[in-house]
Amino acid sequence: MKKLEDYVRSIPDFPEPGIIFRDVTSILQDADGLRLAVDSITDCLKDLDFDVVVGAESRGFIFGVPVAYNLHKPFVPVRKKGKLPCETISRSYDLEYGSAIIEMHKDSIKPGQKVAVIDDLIATGGTIEAAVKMIEELGGEVVKIVFLM
Amino acid sequence: MKKLEDYVRSIPDFPEPGIIFRDVTSILQDADGLRLAVDSITDCLKDLDFDVVVGAESRGFIFGVPVAYNLHKPFVPVRKKGKLPCETISRSYDLEYGSAIIEMHKDSIKPGQKVAVIDDLIATGGTIEAAVKMIEELGGEVVKIVFLM
Repeated sequence: MKKLEDYVRSIPDFPEPGIIFRDVTSILQDADGLRLAVDSITDCLKDLDFDVVVGAESRGFIFGVPVAYNLHKPFVPVRKKGKLPCETISRSYDLEYGSAIIEMHKDSIKPGQKVAVIDDLIATGGTIEAAVKMIEELGGEVVKIVFLM
Repeated sequence: MKKLEDYVRSIPDFPEPGIIFRDVTSILQDADGLRLAVDSITDCLKDLDFDVVVGAESRGFIFGVPVAYNLHKPFVPVRKKGKLPCETISRSYDLEYGSAIIEMHKDSIKPGQKVAVIDDLIATGGTIEAAVKMIEELGGEVVKIVFLM
């Protein structure tokens, strides 16, 4: 049986020299790869007591939404600056290559909610660290962080 | 029973004066809304003969991936310029507010494949028009375009 790693192609020196880019599109572009990826994360979370899934734009959306759907939970997006239309909180963070600001709607997490954060892979972890700080600022408790790889 | 529209909040004058923004995050942030949205699109496509789902960054990812998962199809992402690591084709298009370039991997669609395109809502349709042109350039045939709203 194929493992998740078998679906991933690695591209050296993208987007900058010295960085090896793990291309998740190659998982998605295979129906079995997509199913395996979503089912693996779903399995990680199915016995956990939590209220809401959070994923960061845009690759956190790819796996976060189907897992939230499977487990009948709400999905809360973390978006890049200027994309969310209502009142937001924001955090700046360093990327593997550059820096950025991300935002969440102020009303997206209720105080006391238990949160599972989903992303595709860990690079510097900067996005997720910033997301966790925002979730905590809103009164949420991060009970699990799942990376596909 | 609640309808999809009941989950959507509308924000006037975002991101610019005169534009009414339909906030899909309000659907996602409700477990029943998310389920209803994904199931509605899945129902639209379940009897269709097609090979692959295409969705554009980043809101096309939100509904495209879970529908591809449900129907056991591959998902091919259309991404903003510079995000895809392998060889790409690209198109420029006008947005409701501004303009942009989107890309697809050259090997993402095989000649003759039947494609269903999924997006959240139609604004000017510029993104989807550009995506359709790219799919056709790669030899694919767009057999259905589904908008959530």
